[in-house]
Amino acid sequence: MSARAGIIVTGTEVLTGRIADRNGPWLAEELRTAGVDVAHVLIVGDRREDLRSALLFQVASGVDLVITSGGLGPTADDLTAEVVGEVQGRPSELDPDLERRIGRIVDALLARRGWRVDPAATAASTRKQALVPRGAAVLEPVGTAPGLVVPAGGGRSGPPVVVLPGPPAELQGMWPAALADPAVERALAGRAELHQRTLRLWNTPESELAATLRDLGPTLGGLEITTCLRGGELEVVTRYSPAAQPAYDDLVVAMQAAYPGALFSADGRTVDDIVAEALLARHLTIATAESCTAGLLAGRLTERAGSSEWVLGGQVVYSNAAKRELAGVPQELLEQVGAVSAEVAAALAKGARARLRADLGVGITGIAGPGGGSPGKPVGLVHLCVAGPARQLAREVVLPGTRADIRTRSVTLAMHMLRELLDGIPVQHDHGRARRDSNPQPPDP
Amino acid sequence: MSARAGIIVTGTEVLTGRIADRNGPWLAEELRTAGVDVAHVLIVGDRREDLRSALLFQVASGVDLVITSGGLGPTADDLTAEVVGEVQGRPSELDPDLERRIGRIVDALLARRGWRVDPAATAASTRKQALVPRGAAVLEPVGTAPGLVVPAGGGRSGPPVVVLPGPPAELQGMWPAALADPAVERALAGRAELHQRTLRLWNTPESELAATLRDLGPTLGGLEITTCLRGGELEVVTRYSPAAQPAYDDLVVAMQAAYPGALFSADGRTVDDIVAEALLARHLTIATAESCTAGLLAGRLTERAGSSEWVLGGQVVYSNAAKRELAGVPQELLEQVGAVSAEVAAALAKGARARLRADLGVGITGIAGPGGGSPGKPVGLVHLCVAGPARQLAREVVLPGTRADIRTRSVTLAMHMLRELLDGIPVQHDHGRARRDSNPQPPDP
Repeated sequence: MSARAGIIVTGTEVLTGRIADRNGPWLAEELRTAGVDVAHVLIVGDRREDLRSALLFQVASGVDLVITSGGLGPTADDLTAEVVGEVQGRPSELDPDLERRIGRIVDALLARRGWRVDPAATAASTRKQALVPRGAAVLEPVGTAPGLVVPAGGGRSGPPVVVLPGPPAELQGMWPAALADPAVERALAGRAELHQRTLRLWNTPESELAATLRDLGPTLGGLEITTCLRGGELEVVTRYSPAAQPAYDDLVVAMQAAYPGALFSADGRTVDDIVAEALLARHLTIATAESCTAGLLAGRLTERAGSSEWVLGGQVVYSNAAKRELAGVPQELLEQVGAVSAEVAAALAKGARARLRADLGVGITGIAGPGGGSPGKPVGLVHLCVAGPARQLAREVVLPGTRADIRTRSVTLAMHMLRELLDGIPVQHDHGRARRDSNPQPPDP
Repeated sequence: MSARAGIIVTGTEVLTGRIADRNGPWLAEELRTAGVDVAHVLIVGDRREDLRSALLFQVASGVDLVITSGGLGPTADDLTAEVVGEVQGRPSELDPDLERRIGRIVDALLARRGWRVDPAATAASTRKQALVPRGAAVLEPVGTAPGLVVPAGGGRSGPPVVVLPGPPAELQGMWPAALADPAVERALAGRAELHQRTLRLWNTPESELAATLRDLGPTLGGLEITTCLRGGELEVVTRYSPAAQPAYDDLVVAMQAAYPGALFSADGRTVDDIVAEALLARHLTIATAESCTAGLLAGRLTERAGSSEWVLGGQVVYSNAAKRELAGVPQELLEQVGAVSAEVAAALAKGARARLRADLGVGITGIAGPGGGSPGKPVGLVHLCVAGPARQLAREVVLPGTRADIRTRSVTLAMHMLRELLDGIPVQHDHGRARRDSNPQPPDP
C-alpha cells in the first residue's frame, strides 16, 4: 500500500467554476511520481466554516498528508493559514522576521512594475501574510506569500498539513521545499512506487472495451484499470505495483490483439506526440487553412517547444473572401458547392500546402453552430482534408455537442488524420535531411 | 440562508488530472441561478472505499442535496449507482423495463455508427446499467446511462442524492428532469435568491485592491466579496441577498471612483464581450497575423456564435517565410530588426489589415520559449500592435510563466489593446451600416 494524500483547493472562484483549478491535477501528478496516491481532491470556497469542515474531513480520512492550495493572499477572504492553525491546534502569531522578508519582496515587486501604493496598505497586507501557526515550518515565498508545513499540535494526532499558495507558478516553485520538509518526509516514509501506464484507442465503443476487459478478467490481478472516453479517444489507464508488471504486459499483448487498428498508442504518447515525432523524423513541414476551427489546429500544432521545425504557418479563412484571397479557393467553387463541402476542404488543404510550399496541408471547413445549419448541412457538419505529397485523406463528419465541442473535436479528428497519413509515408533520412539543411528554420517563436 | 448542495465528481481520470472536470463548475453555476449555494466539490477516483467516504462526508455535512457525476458507464470501474444505494440504505436491483429501454438505445447507437459488437457483451453492459437502488427515481437516459434520484432509506435521514452521468452533454441534458423530481424539489424548498455580480479590473495590484476593500469595510455589510487575479485581470465577485442591494450599489460607486481607468467592466461583461460588442456596434471588421500565439487569438475571437459578422480571418505566420509571404513583412526588416520587434509587430498588424481589407489588424510576435531567448530578447518578450483606420497601439512586454502561460497572456493583452483602441473610435451608425449592407457576410462557419 502506498502512502496517501488528500488535497484541498480553496477559492470561491474555483468552486463556482469561474476559473478552472490547475493545482489539484498538478499536485496529483507530482504525488503520483513521488509514489503517493491521492484519495480525494476537495474544492471549497473562501468561507471559514466550509474550509474548516473540509480540513476536518481530510485530517480524519486516514491519509498520511493533507495539502491545501490558495487562500494565502492579502485580502480578507484569504483564510487558509489561520483555519489550518485552528484545526491543527496551533494558533497563529506574527513572525517579525518573515514580515521583513515579505516586505522586501513586495517593495521590489511594486518598484519593478512602477506601481505606487499607499505604504500603510502594503504594510497591513504584509503583516497579515506573516501570521504563522505556532510551531509551523515556513516555506519561503516564491511570489509574496509564504507556504507552511503545519504538524498536528495541541494534543491532536493526525497528518501534517502542507499549506501552499494558489497561483500555479508559486505553488509549483514551492513544492520541492515542501517535499523536503522533515515532517512531510516522515509522513510519506511508507510510500511505495506505483506505475501508471496508458493505452489510447481511437474510434472504439466503450461497451466493446468493457466486454474485452470482462473477458480478460481472470488475468488482470493487481491492475487498477480505469477507462475514459473523450473527444473520440478512449483512454485505458492502469495503475499497478511493480510486482504486477507481468500482468500488465499480458494486458498490452491482449489489447494489441483485440484492437489492431484502433490502439494507436501503448507507450503513453498522445496523438500530438505521435504527429510531432512523425513530422520531425520525416523532415516534413506542415501548413493549415482553417475555417470553423479558426486557428485552433495551428495553435495546437505549436503547443510544443520546437514546433517551428515543422510548422510553417497557416491561414484562418473565416470569411469567404479569406478563403479566396488567402487560400486561393476559386469563387466558382464556393458558389457551386458552398463553403462547407469536401471540395472546399480539399482546396483549402491544397492552398495551405502551395502557399507556404509545405509538405503537408490541412483544410477544415464546417458549421460549428449554433446557427447556420440547414437540413442538407446541419450544425456539426465538418469536412476535413489532409494532403501530402503523394496522397490525401478526406473525412466528412457530423459532430455532436456545443460550438466549442464541435471545434475541439474537429481539431482532434484532424490530428488523427495527420497521424494516419504520416503513418503511410516512409522515413527517408538522407533525402529529407539534405533538403532541410539547405533551408534551415529559425528558432521557435 | 439559501439551500446548500454538495457535489461529488467521480473518476480517476479527473482525480489524477488527466482530464479537467467540467461538471462541477457547470453544476455550481446552475445551482447558483436556482438559488442554491454549493458548499464543497469533492473529486474522488473510481475506488469503492474512497467513493463511500466521500458520500458519507457529503451526506453528513448538513447540505440539503448531494449531486454526483460520473461512474454510470458499463465498465467495472463504474460504481456510483451501487455505492450510493448502499450509503442511502437502498440495495440495487434489476429494473427489467429500464433494461429494455437502454437496450433499444444502445442498438440504435451501434447501428448509427456502423459498429459491430458481440451481442452478449452489449447485453451484459446494458444489464449493469439497469441496476437501480430500490425505491430510487430513474431519470431517463440522454446518452445510454440513466440518472437516479436516491432518497435516504432504510431508516436513515439525510439529503437525497442525485446521480448523474459523467459526459457533460448527458449530465446537462438530464439536469432539468433532476430539478423537477419531487424529492429534489422538497429538498430545495427553502432556497432564497442570491445575487452574484462581478467587477473586472485590468492591471491593478491585488494589495491595492485589498487596501481599498479594508477602507470600505464598514459599508460592506451583507456582501460576500472574493477576489481573484488571473492573467493580469483582477476579478471582484460579490454575492449577496437582495436586501443587500444598496450596499452593493455603494461598493460599485466607490470602486468606480477608486479605479477610473482600471475598472473596465462593472456589468459582468468580459473583455471578450466588450470587444465583440464594440466591433459589432461600429460595424468594423478585424483580421489577425500571429506568430508566437499561432492562431490562438483568432480562435478566441471566433469563440462566440455570430463572430463571422466581424472576424474576416487571419494568418499564422510562424516561420519567417510565412511572415514575408502571408503578411507581406519585408525581408530586409526581418534581417535588420529581427522577427521579434516592434517594427515587425506593426508590419504584421498592417499586413493583416491590408490583406483582407479589414478595418482593424492585430500583429503579435514574441518568444514563447522555453528555448530561443537571448540576453537582448529574453523568453517571454512579446511585441503586440493593434492598428485601426486612424490610430494604432503598440506594446512591448516580458511575460512570466510557461510557454502556454506566455501565449495565453499575450492573447489576453491583445484583447485589452483592442478594447482600448475601440473605445477611442466613435460609433457611427449610418456610415457603417451603409458600408456593411453592400457587403453582407455569410452565416457563421
